[in-house]
Amino acid sequence: TRRGVPEAILAEGKTPDETATIAVAAVETSGRALVTRASADHAEAVADALPDCTIDRDARAKTVVACDSSFERPDLDATVGIVTGGTSDAEAAGEASVVLREMGVSVERVEDVGVAHLGRVLDHLDLLREVDVLIVAAGREGALPTVAAGLVDTPVIGLPVSTGYGHGGDGEAALLGMVQSCTVLSVVNIDAGYIAGAQAGLIARAVAGARQTDQ
Amino acid sequence: TRRGVPEAILAEGKTPDETATIAVAAVETSGRALVTRASADHAEAVADALPDCTIDRDARAKTVVACDSSFERPDLDATVGIVTGGTSDAEAAGEASVVLREMGVSVERVEDVGVAHLGRVLDHLDLLREVDVLIVAAGREGALPTVAAGLVDTPVIGLPVSTGYGHGGDGEAALLGMVQSCTVLSVVNIDAGYIAGAQAGLIARAVAGARQTDQ
Amino acid sequence: TRRGVPEAILAEGKTPDETATIAVAAVETSGRALVTRASADHAEAVADALPDCTIDRDARAKTVVACDSSFERPDLDATVGIVTGGTSDAEAAGEASVVLREMGVSVERVEDVGVAHLGRVLDHLDLLREVDVLIVAAGREGALPTVAAGLVDTPVIGLPVSTGYGHGGDGEAALLGMVQSCTVLSVVNIDAGYIAGAQAGLIARAVAGARQTDQ
Amino acid sequence: TRRGVPEAILAEGKTPDETATIAVAAVETSGRALVTRASADHAEAVADALPDCTIDRDARAKTVVACDSSFERPDLDATVGIVTGGTSDAEAAGEASVVLREMGVSVERVEDVGVAHLGRVLDHLDLLREVDVLIVAAGREGALPTVAAGLVDTPVIGLPVSTGYGHGGDGEAALLGMVQSCTVLSVVNIDAGYIAGAQAGLIARAVAGARQTDQ
Amino acid sequence: TRRGVPEAILAEGKTPDETATIAVAAVETSGRALVTRASADHAEAVADALPDCTIDRDARAKTVVACDSSFERPDLDATVGIVTGGTSDAEAAGEASVVLREMGVSVERVEDVGVAHLGRVLDHLDLLREVDVLIVAAGREGALPTVAAGLVDTPVIGLPVSTGYGHGGDGEAALLGMVQSCTVLSVVNIDAGYIAGAQAGLIARAVAGARQTDQ
Amino acid sequence: TRRGVPEAILAEGKTPDETATIAVAAVETSGRALVTRASADHAEAVADALPDCTIDRDARAKTVVACDSSFERPDLDATVGIVTGGTSDAEAAGEASVVLREMGVSVERVEDVGVAHLGRVLDHLDLLREVDVLIVAAGREGALPTVAAGLVDTPVIGLPVSTGYGHGGDGEAALLGMVQSCTVLSVVNIDAGYIAGAQAGLIARAVAGARQTDQ
Amino acid sequence: TRRGVPEAILAEGKTPDETATIAVAAVETSGRALVTRASADHAEAVADALPDCTIDRDARAKTVVACDSSFERPDLDATVGIVTGGTSDAEAAGEASVVLREMGVSVERVEDVGVAHLGRVLDHLDLLREVDVLIVAAGREGALPTVAAGLVDTPVIGLPVSTGYGHGGDGEAALLGMVQSCTVLSVVNIDAGYIAGAQAGLIARAVAGARQTDQ
Amino acid sequence: TRRGVPEAILAEGKTPDETATIAVAAVETSGRALVTRASADHAEAVADALPDCTIDRDARAKTVVACDSSFERPDLDATVGIVTGGTSDAEAAGEASVVLREMGVSVERVEDVGVAHLGRVLDHLDLLREVDVLIVAAGREGALPTVAAGLVDTPVIGLPVSTGYGHGGDGEAALLGMVQSCTVLSVVNIDAGYIAGAQAGLIARAVAGARQTDQ
Ligand SMILES: Nc1ncnc2c1ncn2[C@@H]1O[C@H](COP(=O)(O)O)[C@@H](O)[C@H]1O
Ligand SMILES: Nc1ncnc2c1ncn2[C@@H]1O[C@H](COP(=O)(O)O)[C@@H](O)[C@H]1O
Ligand SMILES: Nc1ncnc2c1ncn2[C@@H]1O[C@H](COP(=O)(O)O)[C@@H](O)[C@H]1O
Ligand SMILES: Nc1ncnc2c1ncn2[C@@H]1O[C@H](COP(=O)(O)O)[C@@H](O)[C@H]1O
Ligand SMILES: [Mg+2]
Ligand SMILES: [Mg+2]
Ligand SMILES: [Mg+2]
Ligand SMILES: [Mg+2]
Ligand SMILES: [Mg+2]
Ligand SMILES: [Mg+2]
Ligand SMILES: [Mg+2]
Ligand SMILES: [Mg+2]
Repeated sequence: TRRGVPEAILAEGKTPDETATIAVAAVETSGRALVTRASADHAEAVADALPDCTIDRDARAKTVVACDSSFERPDLDATVGIVTGGTSDAEAAGEASVVLREMGVSVERVEDVGVAHLGRVLDHLDLLREVDVLIVAAGREGALPTVAAGLVDTPVIGLPVSTGYGHGGDGEAALLGMVQSCTVLSVVNIDAGYIAGAQAGLIARAVAGARQTDQ
Repeated sequence: TRRGVPEAILAEGKTPDETATIAVAAVETSGRALVTRASADHAEAVADALPDCTIDRDARAKTVVACDSSFERPDLDATVGIVTGGTSDAEAAGEASVVLREMGVSVERVEDVGVAHLGRVLDHLDLLREVDVLIVAAGREGALPTVAAGLVDTPVIGLPVSTGYGHGGDGEAALLGMVQSCTVLSVVNIDAGYIAGAQAGLIARAVAGARQTDQ
Repeated sequence: TRRGVPEAILAEGKTPDETATIAVAAVETSGRALVTRASADHAEAVADALPDCTIDRDARAKTVVACDSSFERPDLDATVGIVTGGTSDAEAAGEASVVLREMGVSVERVEDVGVAHLGRVLDHLDLLREVDVLIVAAGREGALPTVAAGLVDTPVIGLPVSTGYGHGGDGEAALLGMVQSCTVLSVVNIDAGYIAGAQAGLIARAVAGARQTDQ
Repeated sequence: TRRGVPEAILAEGKTPDETATIAVAAVETSGRALVTRASADHAEAVADALPDCTIDRDARAKTVVACDSSFERPDLDATVGIVTGGTSDAEAAGEASVVLREMGVSVERVEDVGVAHLGRVLDHLDLLREVDVLIVAAGREGALPTVAAGLVDTPVIGLPVSTGYGHGGDGEAALLGMVQSCTVLSVVNIDAGYIAGAQAGLIARAVAGARQTDQ
Repeated sequence: TRRGVPEAILAEGKTPDETATIAVAAVETSGRALVTRASADHAEAVADALPDCTIDRDARAKTVVACDSSFERPDLDATVGIVTGGTSDAEAAGEASVVLREMGVSVERVEDVGVAHLGRVLDHLDLLREVDVLIVAAGREGALPTVAAGLVDTPVIGLPVSTGYGHGGDGEAALLGMVQSCTVLSVVNIDAGYIAGAQAGLIARAVAGARQTDQ
Repeated sequence: TRRGVPEAILAEGKTPDETATIAVAAVETSGRALVTRASADHAEAVADALPDCTIDRDARAKTVVACDSSFERPDLDATVGIVTGGTSDAEAAGEASVVLREMGVSVERVEDVGVAHLGRVLDHLDLLREVDVLIVAAGREGALPTVAAGLVDTPVIGLPVSTGYGHGGDGEAALLGMVQSCTVLSVVNIDAGYIAGAQAGLIARAVAGARQTDQ
Repeated sequence: TRRGVPEAILAEGKTPDETATIAVAAVETSGRALVTRASADHAEAVADALPDCTIDRDARAKTVVACDSSFERPDLDATVGIVTGGTSDAEAAGEASVVLREMGVSVERVEDVGVAHLGRVLDHLDLLREVDVLIVAAGREGALPTVAAGLVDTPVIGLPVSTGYGHGGDGEAALLGMVQSCTVLSVVNIDAGYIAGAQAGLIARAVAGARQTDQ
Repeated sequence: TRRGVPEAILAEGKTPDETATIAVAAVETSGRALVTRASADHAEAVADALPDCTIDRDARAKTVVACDSSFERPDLDATVGIVTGGTSDAEAAGEASVVLREMGVSVERVEDVGVAHLGRVLDHLDLLREVDVLIVAAGREGALPTVAAGLVDTPVIGLPVSTGYGHGGDGEAALLGMVQSCTVLSVVNIDAGYIAGAQAGLIARAVAGARQTDQ
């Protein structure tokens, strides 16, 4: 646990066995293991290797969290909103969501809100304005964070997603659109749900800390 | 005049003298010369070389149009809307505007409408919906055509503009965003105001032709 | 149905089950579902999930259209020509064709017409000049839309296709060639047959509307 | 003033006159004008056009701020640290600094701290850990934010700067290094000091708000 | 003189003095100096440094050739055709032309022939078919060599020219289009008129050699 | 057969059945079919579909040639040399070789000659100097054509091959090296053995024609 | 064996049979064969084809070394350190390690040392300073060689590794970061462990030679 | 002086005054200042600011070295060879040369040796083989380091130079060619003569150290 952020094990490119071995070591050190981009096989190997842990698998987010009985998750007085434009944004957004939960931050999800249907964005305006930080995931042309950031006072983190095909596909257009945005945003790498979640969590923790200090 | 589109002389990269010589030839052949990306020097050289022509210079669009007395501009029963996001879009939008006027198409301009201030887009919704074709110019992240096309039934042509700096600057992010758009658009090259105008003009002419035929 | 354009379900990257679930919802909402980039498995899952619908699968275009008995397709008085340079352009062109049909627009196909054999282009000149809008698909160097647009008065939409190998392969050379074209064109993304068809359909609808209005 | 962030007038690409006109309008609307990327000529034109305003020019940051007598700058109980690796990072860092000051946030600057001399980074560790948010500017290989973020609990915003030559020069290597960072960061565009400052300011404002609420 | 090809001195990036010094050395070694990309200043310095040489300057091609009185240009029984699409192709085509003349090859120029006006290409078909080798220069989308090569039996060398703006400008679209061409072509670098001319000259020399041998 | 060049059927991306159908049509039209990038399955399908043809399959070149009994291959008095740097260049070089043979040109192969072992290049100097045209294939850094062209008078065609990994891999470094070559070369696309062979064949045919004419 | 560096057979892209045939030839010529990027199948084929050789397979490095009984490995008085940032760097670092061992150079490995945990780098400072040459492998943002080179006097070779996803993934950010490094480094291609090892070996051999000479 | 390498002040992008101020500080700290990419104005400002120093300006290398009277340059028993392909490589090579001299390393220059004239490379073979380290600078296709490294046992550092125009110009083709080289090389960034010199100097120092130790 660096900076209150649970370090993640990127399963992609590792065998189930290798992943499980690292997860066991993580549980030993910190009481918890967080695995991202985990296939069903990765998830099974981790569960088998940690029979005494509570296992929490999110198949859409492709994450596995294993905690031993002694582990106590923190609980922070702060909320992060996660907005997605379509079903293809679900994995990256889910990754962000899991990291935030593990950091003890409350999460509000707003799904299937696209710039092509402004109505749906406007419907959720109250929620978007109430959270402490906003993660906005978007693929293809990646315009959603720009539009959302124009409507709220909250800090917005743009999370480009590797959808789209042809020229600028695989999230490149989305990343470019977000760094060129004419509203104020910071961004993370394409599909970097873990980083977006952790960065939002660090901000949320700072806010929660400020709340706590003064109580 | 190919396809009813006045052929343009791109002054950039030509000396004022070269430009004037080609303009004189164009007036001789077709009664009119349209010069784009013309500096003040280009404009002066063209005017001096064609003392008997009516000269129409638009400094912001950097265009010069010279017509001899015999020239009769067409007049079409169709309107194109041109929407821009900021002052930096003025040159490209102006180029489109001049070509359309020369093709005999009516033009409606809506300026300084950006995705960061949705209110201003919504204010002009009636106008955006009334025209026959819509050209939407945008630089930086280029999200405006996507948002506009989600609000209207009209065919929309995206015109990316070479603003922005750093990664994806010079219009590259805008072009990518438009080809990846999740609403239906066709696009032209970065800063290609002449092409956007001419293409909108060809569509407008088809519409005007359909109107005329049936009357 | 946004802008008279049937919204499409992009099957690529979705499981057959997910695709079928979205298709069922689309039929419930609008009486019709249009699925693009559908494998045989996607097609089967959609058909199985919608036993009371008419199913129209085009294997070359990789599209599936499902309509319930109440659905009534529009019928517009306008025609779009679709020109292709080779067999590899068939999928993108087919996607365009299906969208147009669903919008109620008549389609004329001209196949296997390449810039290396100008004769075949010139053979079809009459047809190319008669339609209201022209979609020209081309891979590799993508020169066909440029040549075609130089021969007709019709608005032309260039559709770059992901053929070619090596430097500039996968449609990048074709896209660049079309945005740099020295004739008037607008373009869509590489392989974006759905967008090309829908944009042509919007123009065709504007023309048909003009025809109807005056009758 | 959108989201508490003073909107900036980007002088680059505008004439001194145009810039001054927009600045006058900004003062009329909001009591203040913030001009970025301003040459000496831009600065002079703005000062001349606003004789009754207090003018605050930062030549290294290339910013000009004009306030009329009625203007009251906010004052927030939060601090942002700005770390730079070398003299070439001064302009971008200065832009960030000015925006933060205008938002009422305290700023701590740590200059000439590079990854090639870890000693200097470690010297300032206390300060880096005390601020609420950290902006880390770096050109060339852009490793400084990664190293800094590994040492603190604070949210870090990476600001890539357009130094370096040859392959990956002009800030491209720095931007890539920051999005690929193996510590948790969010980033802004190359040289986007204004965006980095404004985003840090929004976070600082959220923290200050949390502090205030509870008092 | 390597391979019968006069080695060229690329003046761009050299001072007039440096250029003249190298030209003097070239005349001493081989009786002739060929300078490319020469400004008026370069040309004057070369002429001044070689008062006893015949100086042949082509301002459009930006070349200078200096020969001493003893120099005898070869004379080959072969012809190369050089086709250009517009005035911007003149410098590159001129460079090719000068090299060919210096190699003793006859040159036929066909100017202002573009794919947007197929008529003009077809007008020159006889000439295009009679030469031994064809160089086809083209900027923007670079489709002219593809179209030309589809009409003749002659070997065609594509010469991409650095025209065009925006995405794929500066000759990149033209180069890509030529390497992706669906007719048989070989190509040279963007603006490499000297290389195109020399390569065509080597082929012409092989043909002339075959003619001579058998006589 | 366009320009004496047998048109090729690119099997890659087509099913064996589709390939066979096109091959049958080619044999009907011209007495011969040339299939490139053919897997064993493609080859079998073609052979099965053309039981009365002579089938010539080159597994390393991945080509299949089918001729009916009436077909007469031309026979030209000219020779092309094909030089390769390693085993990975074999497919592209083989493709070139087959096209040349089908055009009736003699081929001399020189294999495994790399710039890292100049000795082997110098060993074959006589042969390299005797042929009429030289194709030099090279992957990775692609320096072989540059070195070879510095040693001979023959026209050289550079054929970049998609070897190499990492930055500039897949033939991109080789292509760039060849267009930047400081000796005179023309080039074709990465792996475009068919184009290299056909272009060399057109040159060889011109030379052979010159030989014949004068006899 | 060129320059004391055993030439390697890159198994990737070759069949097991082809690989084994080349390995047999290498053993015949030089008593040893070094195969890189070898799968289990490649390894088995090599072992089967060389029953009288000692076979040394390193599965993590994906190398196979076969030596006949007469082969005598050199032994040099020099040491190279190899530092890696994570498990994904193991293959490239292992390749370097094997080449060095075959050149007779001692190797010291320091694993799992990342810029995000400076502590671990500082822990190994003595070792890093004692070796004659340092290879530092790093993926993602590739900052480790920059940080290491700032702490030692030894020549450092940066070895970028193809980890990372999204923008700048696959080692591109790492390579850029290393060529832009603000400390003194030379680099090799992405994943080029063999080249890094061989170059370090050549330097080590020069140092060992200097040691030996003077003894 | 880090790692025995004099730290350099990059004058490019700094005013003469700023440069002089930093140079004065460097002399105060270390007795010496090394300025790279210095114009005549930079050189003059440095000389004026350091009237008591010995000033050594190399106009072709664009370097200035200022030493106070107390400064003693080291003297190492090692030699580095620097090979260049043409006059355009002089600046980068000169930068390397000056750094090496300041590190106390002997330098041997071999100029105007290109791959197009292998004879000249072979002429200098003895010298190339005698030095301890070789820097090979090359622009355009950058093949010279590959060819040279194939002929010697010495470690070779490739230094790509920003010559060449069109596709792969400005040193990009040279850099790619060097990282893809089929002989063993390490490389530095385009035009990074200072880095190449310093890295060669670190290797030379290791060799000289080994020599000294044992005496
Ligand atoms: N073949 C296609 N090309 C481009 N856009 C498509 C295609 N098929 C569907 N779409 C659009 O892509 C979006 C669907 O995104 P998703 O939420 O990922 O299903 C909708 O806006 C569709 O209209
Ligand atoms: N230095 C800067 N970096 C990024 N954005 C800026 C900067 N200065 C001004 N802006 C923003 O750029 C937009 C101004 O665009 P324009 O209409 O071209 O003046 C506004 O949204 C500003 O807030
Ligand atoms: N316009 C040109 N295009 C391509 N190569 C050229 C040109 N002019 C000269 N060269 C070649 O460039 C090299 C000259 O390089 P440099 O040593 O920089 O003068 C020689 O091989 C010339 O033959
Ligand atoms: N010509 C050069 N090439 C590469 N690095 C250089 C050069 N000259 C100076 N440097 C390095 O660049 C850094 C100076 O950066 P700056 O703070 O911008 O002056 C120092 O680490 C210098 O050693
Ligand atoms: Mg989206
Ligand atoms: Mg905009
Ligand atoms: Mg095509
Ligand atoms: Mg830095
Ligand atoms: Mg052209
Ligand atoms: Mg090779
Ligand atoms: Mg790493
Ligand atoms: Mg060179």
